[in-house]
Amino acid sequence: MAIVNGNYSNLQQSYLFTEIAHRVAKFAQEHPEKKIIKMGIGDVTLPLAPAVIKAMTKAVAEMGVKETFRGYGPEQGYDFLHEALVKYYASHGVTLSTTEIFVSDGAKSDCGNLTDIFDDSDVILLPDPVYPVYADTNIMRGRKILYMNGTPENGFLPMPNSSIKADIIYLCSPNNPTGAAYTKEQLTEWVEFANKNDAVILFDAAYESFITNPDIPHSIYVVPGAEKCAIEISSFSKTAGFTGTRCGYTVVPHALKRKTPQGAEMELNKMWLRRQTTKFNGVNYIVQRGAEAVFTPEGQAECGAMLDYYRENARIMMETLDTKGIKYFGGVYSPYIWMQCPNGMGSWEFFDYLLTNLAIVGTPGEGFGKMGEGYFRLTAFGSKEGTQEAMERFNKGL
Amino acid sequence: MAIVNGNYSNLQQSYLFTEIAHRVAKFAQEHPEKKIIKMGIGDVTLPLAPAVIKAMTKAVAEMGVKETFRGYGPEQGYDFLHEALVKYYASHGVTLSTTEIFVSDGAKSDCGNLTDIFDDSDVILLPDPVYPVYADTNIMRGRKILYMNGTPENGFLPMPNSSIKADIIYLCSPNNPTGAAYTKEQLTEWVEFANKNDAVILFDAAYESFITNPDIPHSIYVVPGAEKCAIEISSFSKTAGFTGTRCGYTVVPHALKRKTPQGAEMELNKMWLRRQTTKFNGVNYIVQRGAEAVFTPEGQAECGAMLDYYRENARIMMETLDTKGIKYFGGVYSPYIWMQCPNGMGSWEFFDYLLTNLAIVGTPGEGFGKMGEGYFRLTAFGSKEGTQEAMERFNKGL
Repeated sequence: MAIVNGNYSNLQQSYLFTEIAHRVAKFAQEHPEKKIIKMGIGDVTLPLAPAVIKAMTKAVAEMGVKETFRGYGPEQGYDFLHEALVKYYASHGVTLSTTEIFVSDGAKSDCGNLTDIFDDSDVILLPDPVYPVYADTNIMRGRKILYMNGTPENGFLPMPNSSIKADIIYLCSPNNPTGAAYTKEQLTEWVEFANKNDAVILFDAAYESFITNPDIPHSIYVVPGAEKCAIEISSFSKTAGFTGTRCGYTVVPHALKRKTPQGAEMELNKMWLRRQTTKFNGVNYIVQRGAEAVFTPEGQAECGAMLDYYRENARIMMETLDTKGIKYFGGVYSPYIWMQCPNGMGSWEFFDYLLTNLAIVGTPGEGFGKMGEGYFRLTAFGSKEGTQEAMERFNKGL
Repeated sequence: MAIVNGNYSNLQQSYLFTEIAHRVAKFAQEHPEKKIIKMGIGDVTLPLAPAVIKAMTKAVAEMGVKETFRGYGPEQGYDFLHEALVKYYASHGVTLSTTEIFVSDGAKSDCGNLTDIFDDSDVILLPDPVYPVYADTNIMRGRKILYMNGTPENGFLPMPNSSIKADIIYLCSPNNPTGAAYTKEQLTEWVEFANKNDAVILFDAAYESFITNPDIPHSIYVVPGAEKCAIEISSFSKTAGFTGTRCGYTVVPHALKRKTPQGAEMELNKMWLRRQTTKFNGVNYIVQRGAEAVFTPEGQAECGAMLDYYRENARIMMETLDTKGIKYFGGVYSPYIWMQCPNGMGSWEFFDYLLTNLAIVGTPGEGFGKMGEGYFRLTAFGSKEGTQEAMERFNKGL
């Protein structure tokens, strides 16, 4: 008699964005005349960069010719992309070897699949609010989860607390949903805390390309000692608009070692390699060529212009919120603006209010954890026109 | 103190194909003058079909234009591909709803990730020999694994045995590595056995497109009752040469229900949907358009011609083995020929013999389980010229 994973019963019924999509679809059906502006899900809207399109078009053509056709590639990604990523990390002052980088179909997959290589007795420490995938994927393994509160007082950047005993610590910087980002000094505290406790940090750097301030690290590996305690997950989704193209990468340093319950010391890099070669078959060749093109001078210029476009949207939003006297976080190193719901509204209450009255879709803070109650996430990934119109509606209707 | 998954210590050091690649690389380095013919890993060599290339080229162009750009797609795949797959199944006499089909980045990923939705107390029943991923991914979860022997006597098609109590049964038909395929009558026995015992069958149909005999089902769902006990995994890898393009699909019928350890009845379709929406972010849009094109009349004709090309290779190989009086299985409904090692050689012994003396690479049967000892897998995925030359070397050197 097959028994199914009972931990799934402990998951909330519906994944956050599915619930939002459902409410929006219902509203759209009932009000076909309304022009809905979507500032909810963190999805990009600008097309792929011309350098990426050129590289992918060439790669598609190669796949149609016997001499240049590619079958199975290396599960951990092609060398050409590893080499481009090594150079990219070097530009941020981080030295990696190509075998420390694993190319995947995206940060969300890696984030979930990394739970495979840890023991189910590990206690998880999560910031609250944060990307719901961290909690859900650990609930699926039945792990104990502790939370550390993000508050206006700590700028939604919780710091280590020696009274909390946790084995795996998730950090997301710049944070989704709050847009808050750790400084090098703050990350140094986290690395020291993890090394002291033999904890492992899963560092989600998916939004690193939005950082412009030199005090905010693009990678946790700028902190000495991080290679002994941290795995870093990143992605082309926000850097180059790859949300529908699917490509991410995870760094597992060779220096990162931990023990099994039986006391055998394991190199996590080798475990992840084994996981990926056994349960994954690599990323589409065409996509990897597209990702490689992101690092060419043309690609960097074009993707940089895209990031600037979204940054300008964030600036427009911050300007309006400043005018209205609404408190918010993020927006500076991040495509996310984390605003306080006006008039003491709850976050789903404000979601329904915005949708019904202004036909604007955002994400209720509550969907990211209990500390998100009373807050609301807006994204800068829309069009400039849409962002401006949304802010006009804010000006009139809030 | 983070503890890592101790089950990884129970995995064999090196994944089969990694070990082969290693030995081949060593030989190639020592003998640069030898022309190695690769009949080992099950990787295709013909380029993608023109219809697929055309569809992917168009999709790449769409991704470069704001109006047609696609961001995040549905995690379970686009409707256009679900609809094409529903029609494909209907052509084999199977009625599915679009919500029963999940598009993924490949059968290997699904095969490994499906282990997530079951309880770790489930006992696994595997044919021996078989694709090593079934065992390895369950070893990673610490599950108990039982084997049922494939032998020359049962044609490498083990049948149910009421004395064996197992919860999850893996069947691969046409089988990798033996090429043997179950008839409808045999699959009916399996479905009855699974339903009687509340077991779940994971049916790997990745090689179904090689089937030409009407007695051999392309899908387990031609058997009444299979929708209550079976999950089916399939792929475009062999059907359309997508090994490096990455697209597969898994069918989880709505009728398939099992209980949690706490006794709650769960619909496995809903569990898999939750798994995929939480730990996966869908397949690249361009690839899904390419996969859709496989089902157009042009795509069907072009992919059919590819399959015929590989079938002809298999015929050439079978002809040589017949002439030499070497016993084999498969080759008829399958790109794989499962030959007995000549002169009582062991399978790794024959691997080294073939590599060293004839510069031909195959796969040692032992790599697929203990019952594979003394057998050897050859694939028909090479070029016709390469296959012919390999068979000439067989004729002279064996």
